[in-house]
Amino acid sequence: MQIYADYAATAPLRPAALQAMTPWLAGTGFGNASSMYALAREAKRGLEQARCDVALALGVMPEEVFFTSGGTESDNWALKGVMEVGALAGKKHFITTAIEHPAIMQTSMWLERQGMEYTSLPADSVGRVSPESAADAVRPDTKLISVMYANNEIGTIQPVSEIFAAAKEKNPQIICHTDAVQAAGQIDLDIGNADMVSLSGHKMGGPKGIGVLVIRKGVAISPLMHGGHHERNRRSGTENVAGAAGLAAAITESVQKLPDTQRHLLRMRVRLIQGILGIPYSRLTGDPSKRLPGHASFVFESAEGESLVLGLDLAGISVSSGSACSSAALEASHVLLAIGLPHELAHGSVRFTLGAGVTEEEIDYIVETTKRVVAERRAISPVWDAEQNKPVPFETL
Amino acid sequence: MQIYADYAATAPLRPAALQAMTPWLAGTGFGNASSMYALAREAKRGLEQARCDVALALGVMPEEVFFTSGGTESDNWALKGVMEVGALAGKKHFITTAIEHPAIMQTSMWLERQGMEYTSLPADSVGRVSPESAADAVRPDTKLISVMYANNEIGTIQPVSEIFAAAKEKNPQIICHTDAVQAAGQIDLDIGNADMVSLSGHKMGGPKGIGVLVIRKGVAISPLMHGGHHERNRRSGTENVAGAAGLAAAITESVQKLPDTQRHLLRMRVRLIQGILGIPYSRLTGDPSKRLPGHASFVFESAEGESLVLGLDLAGISVSSGSACSSAALEASHVLLAIGLPHELAHGSVRFTLGAGVTEEEIDYIVETTKRVVAERRAISPVWDAEQNKPVPFETL
Repeated sequence: MQIYADYAATAPLRPAALQAMTPWLAGTGFGNASSMYALAREAKRGLEQARCDVALALGVMPEEVFFTSGGTESDNWALKGVMEVGALAGKKHFITTAIEHPAIMQTSMWLERQGMEYTSLPADSVGRVSPESAADAVRPDTKLISVMYANNEIGTIQPVSEIFAAAKEKNPQIICHTDAVQAAGQIDLDIGNADMVSLSGHKMGGPKGIGVLVIRKGVAISPLMHGGHHERNRRSGTENVAGAAGLAAAITESVQKLPDTQRHLLRMRVRLIQGILGIPYSRLTGDPSKRLPGHASFVFESAEGESLVLGLDLAGISVSSGSACSSAALEASHVLLAIGLPHELAHGSVRFTLGAGVTEEEIDYIVETTKRVVAERRAISPVWDAEQNKPVPFETL
Repeated sequence: MQIYADYAATAPLRPAALQAMTPWLAGTGFGNASSMYALAREAKRGLEQARCDVALALGVMPEEVFFTSGGTESDNWALKGVMEVGALAGKKHFITTAIEHPAIMQTSMWLERQGMEYTSLPADSVGRVSPESAADAVRPDTKLISVMYANNEIGTIQPVSEIFAAAKEKNPQIICHTDAVQAAGQIDLDIGNADMVSLSGHKMGGPKGIGVLVIRKGVAISPLMHGGHHERNRRSGTENVAGAAGLAAAITESVQKLPDTQRHLLRMRVRLIQGILGIPYSRLTGDPSKRLPGHASFVFESAEGESLVLGLDLAGISVSSGSACSSAALEASHVLLAIGLPHELAHGSVRFTLGAGVTEEEIDYIVETTKRVVAERRAISPVWDAEQNKPVPFETL
C-alpha cells in the first residue's frame, strides 16, 4: 500500500490546477502579461482572472491580492516590507510568536540584526498563543504583529482574530499579518481583521513556485523585489501566469469542497489519533480539538522521529518528523520545545497530514504499521527497557 | 500572418521544457524535495539533475547553481546579499551602469536609501560600457560591480569579461556580477571571471517563475529569502522542481542549438535591419555588430513607439517599445536616454526580437508592415511635415 500522508509538506497538484495552468504553458498563452499587444493582453486577462478567483475565495478585493513566488517570499515581504516603512517613522518593534514557520522566525532574526526589535509570544502546552499576551506586548513603537494561522508541525489553530483584535485595541495602527500557508484551503479563514495574509500555492494542491500576499488597502509596504514595476509597482518580476492560474484553481476547489473534506478528514483524524494513542508512551502534540482537520502529530518516547519516518517509508507511508522544511537540518523542533516538550521527546515526533481521499483502510494500515515500526525501533533503542516494556527513566541514564 | 517578435520579453515554452516539467507536475513527482521519504527523494533527484544540467550548460559546478523565482529575484539577491556582507566590513560602495535592467537599477536605488553608495558607469552612443571607466570607478571600499551581459532594449553585448578584468586588476577582492538574463541561450557566455550570474527561465524558452543565480565558490552572500534552509541555507522556500527541470531543459536545448540558431538569426537580422532602415528618418539603436543575434531595435522620428506597437499588433506582429517591463509605465526609456538619444526620439522606439523559427517571408512581412504603419502614424502626426516628407524641425515647434 502506498499512502501519502504529508500534505502539510506539499500536496499533489489538483487536476483542476494543472488544467488551469495548461493554456498559459503551451500554445499562445505564453505572452508577457506586461506587454501591450493582443497575445500579451490575453496573458494579462488570465492573470487578472486568477487574481479575481483568489480574491473571491478569500473574501478580499482583487487589488489586494499580490502574487509572489511562494509562502516564504510572502512572509519575508510582509515583515521586511512593513518594518522598512515602520523604521522610517521610528517604529522598530514588532511582535511574533515562538512557534512560527522558519520563514517568519529567520526573517525576524534578520530584522533584529538590522536594528529592529521583536517580542516572541509564548505558546501554551497545546501550542496556543493568548490574545492577552499579544496585547501586553504592544508598545507605542510597535509596527506589526505576525501570528501564524495554524501551525505546520502540531496543527494547532490560533485565535488570530482575537489576537489581532486585542493588539489593535491597544494600538489601532498596528499592522496584523498572518501566515495562513497551512490553514488556507483546510479550514474557513477568518481574516476580517488581518491586514496581510500569506498563502502558498502548493500546500493547497496548486503548483510550487507561486504564492500570494494579501495586502489590504491602506497598508504601506516597501517592495522586496525591486525592478520593472509589476503588480502595481509592489512586486517586480515577469508575472507567472500559469502559476497564478494554478493557485487560483486550487484555492477555488479547496474552498468549494471544504465542508465535505473537513467532515471526512475529521472522522479520519479521530480514527488515526485513537489508533496511534493505543501505542504505549505516545502522545498527541498540539491542540486536541482546535487543530487542522487532517493533521495528527505525535511524539513517541524512546523512538527517534527520523528513524520512524524511514521505517514508515519502507512500508509505503510518506510522513514527516517535525516540518519538511527543517527535516534536512536534524535539529529538535523549535515548536515542540516551545510547547514545553523536553529535548529527547522533541526528537521523537511524527506528523501525519492527510489528504481528502484517505480511506479507513489506509488509516488502519497507518496505525498498524506505526505500531510495528515503533516497537521495532524501541527494541533496538538503548533508552527503552524491553523487559519492563517502558522507557528507561531519564534520571538513570 | 501572426508573428511573435518579442522574444526579449518572453519566449514560448519549448516542448522539451514542458516535457521535462510534466513528471514533476502530474503523477508521483510532486514530493517536497526537502522531505526524507522515497517519494520526496525522487523530487530531490529531479532537482539535482536540473542543477547539474544548468551547471553543464554554463560550465560551472552544480553547487554553484541556486534556483530562484526569476531574473528579478536573482538580481535583487546578488546586489542586496553581497552588499549586506560588504556593509558589515565597511565596504558600502558598488558599481553598476546607466543601462541596466530595472531589477538592478531599482535595487541600486534602494541600496542607496539604505546608506550604500553607487557609481553608475556611462554607456557610449551604441550602448557600450568601457573597461577603463569601470577601473576608474573602483575605490578601496568598492564591494561589487554589476554589469549586464547584453541589453534588453538595444541588444548591445558588453565586454563584461574585460570590464571585470579591469575592475579586478584594480581591486582583486571585488565581486563581479552580470545580469545575463537576455544573453543566456542567445550567445556563448564568457563568464570565466564573473562571480555571480543571473538567469531567467522564461527568456530561454523555459517556464516563468524560475531563475538561477550562479554564485561561485568562495563568494560570501546573505540570503534574500530567509526561512527553512533550502538550497544549502542560501535560498529558502519549497523547491520548484518542475520549474527547475523546465529551465534546465530550456538552457540545455538553447546551448545545443546555439550555432544553428545564431547563424540563422544573424541572417534574418541583417535582412530586417536593411529593410527597416529603408524607412526614412529611422535609426538602428545599439551596437550594429556586437549585439544579440535576433535583436534589432530602432527609433523612428515623428512616430510614437507605443502607437507603432499597436499598429503592428493589428497586423498580427507582436513587438515592444522599450522593454516589456516598463511599457506599462509609458516613460521614455532610460537606456535610450543614456546612449544620448533626445527625449522625443526615446519615445519612438520599436524593438524586434526574433525567435529561431522566423522565416524570410516573415521578415519581409514585418518590414512592409512597419513601413506602412510608420507612414500612417506620421500622416496624422503634428510633428511630421507631410508635404516635404520629413520631420518638422524641432526648433520650429
